[in-house]
Amino acid sequence: MCNVRLIFEVNMKNIKMIIQYDGTNYKGWQVLKNDDKTIQGKLQNILTKLTGAEVDVIGSGRTDAGVHARGQVANAHLNTDMSAEEIKKYINKYLPDDIAVITCEDIDDRFHARYNAAWKTYSYRINMGSVPNVFEKRFVYQYGRELNTDAMKEAAGYMTGTRDYTSFCGNSKFKKSAVRTVSNIDFKICNKEVIIYYTGDGFLQNMVRIMTGTLIEVGNGTKNPKDIPDILKAKRRELAGYTAPPQGLVLEEVKYDNR
Amino acid sequence: MCNVRLIFEVNMKNIKMIIQYDGTNYKGWQVLKNDDKTIQGKLQNILTKLTGAEVDVIGSGRTDAGVHARGQVANAHLNTDMSAEEIKKYINKYLPDDIAVITCEDIDDRFHARYNAAWKTYSYRINMGSVPNVFEKRFVYQYGRELNTDAMKEAAGYMTGTRDYTSFCGNSKFKKSAVRTVSNIDFKICNKEVIIYYTGDGFLQNMVRIMTGTLIEVGNGTKNPKDIPDILKAKRRELAGYTAPPQGLVLEEVKYDNR
Repeated sequence: MCNVRLIFEVNMKNIKMIIQYDGTNYKGWQVLKNDDKTIQGKLQNILTKLTGAEVDVIGSGRTDAGVHARGQVANAHLNTDMSAEEIKKYINKYLPDDIAVITCEDIDDRFHARYNAAWKTYSYRINMGSVPNVFEKRFVYQYGRELNTDAMKEAAGYMTGTRDYTSFCGNSKFKKSAVRTVSNIDFKICNKEVIIYYTGDGFLQNMVRIMTGTLIEVGNGTKNPKDIPDILKAKRRELAGYTAPPQGLVLEEVKYDNR
Repeated sequence: MCNVRLIFEVNMKNIKMIIQYDGTNYKGWQVLKNDDKTIQGKLQNILTKLTGAEVDVIGSGRTDAGVHARGQVANAHLNTDMSAEEIKKYINKYLPDDIAVITCEDIDDRFHARYNAAWKTYSYRINMGSVPNVFEKRFVYQYGRELNTDAMKEAAGYMTGTRDYTSFCGNSKFKKSAVRTVSNIDFKICNKEVIIYYTGDGFLQNMVRIMTGTLIEVGNGTKNPKDIPDILKAKRRELAGYTAPPQGLVLEEVKYDNR
């Protein structure tokens, strides 16, 4: 008589995904209890169905309700025999048509989309024209008036660097360090549209939208570019500008060192 | 005693407008009874409010439900003192954000947007990629498979000219002449996206969508480019391809002679 031991091989793998979404109809990236209208929730439900076990999809960071992504990055540990390409096809088959997994690849077990994120780039689109852009209205802030973009560029110059961005944080209860490095704020101006690109090692809650609202207040003359250093120094949210609406904001790219 | 005659001057003017719309949420251009969800209906209601009298907005032609326009042209005779620029501002103020009047100008009384239209250009966008374009999904037909664009170009060559397009007409009860001149069918291919531009002196009901469906059937091998002359000759709708869905179609431009 012999002892038979059945060995179940566990095919645990870590996948890295690049995800695009039109955030218009969602309550943001992060899953909410009893609510299906989040990007993370949609992905987790599909991967849980695929593997039969609960799956945690780790994003590079949250995006607010109504904010979009062209290059959100997430990873997930899955117990499956499927190849990364098969997983991608499976997910896209079940995702609604305003979310898509663009790439899916195997990655080493230690990769963590949030902890390992080195740089992020966001874009914010503003239409200064009086006629709304009907085709892009879900992705552009229809501001509708001229802005002094030279003054905005000057103000943006004071916003970059390694600084305490407490004045540009939308979470008044935030207790951790608000020091971040914003390496670049670049402007692209095309006809009546301004696109502002923000690159940094991390952004606080609503930070890009508050920076944009502040730059708009500089552009319309409410604020002076030279006010920015004082706003930063004061560490008081109410001194900065308003929170620009979510629809103009896109998480463009997340970069990882050596990956 | 003197006779006082009050003379009410009638400031009747004809305006020419270029109109853009995202047709996703509309039942097409043409006004329908008891239904507010048409582009023409939206414009007429606003201009009727402006003038206090019923206004007829004459489009260059109808667009189907779900079809978009970047350059629809319309004219309207109005009794108003307002300048064309003021009228444009007034209309845009009341239009929903998926319709916009881009330009509005005074034009001679005899100008008629439909009768005087000389050439129209439509575009049709097809995504051959397996990953849907989440940002452009309202404006692209998500076909999702490779197409033989060389075969499609060859087939398109047989579709141009001055011909009887009965086989490409979606209205089986159409009794008038189906002879039209399609001067150009051009292709723009960028990554996984094909954009087909159709220019002609006029298009029958669903004609661009049926031409597109037929070209797709050539591209996927169901039809041969050399079938096209026989399809045209037969004057039988069922020999042509399917009607491609509306969301890929945009009325790009309407041209008028000497205007």
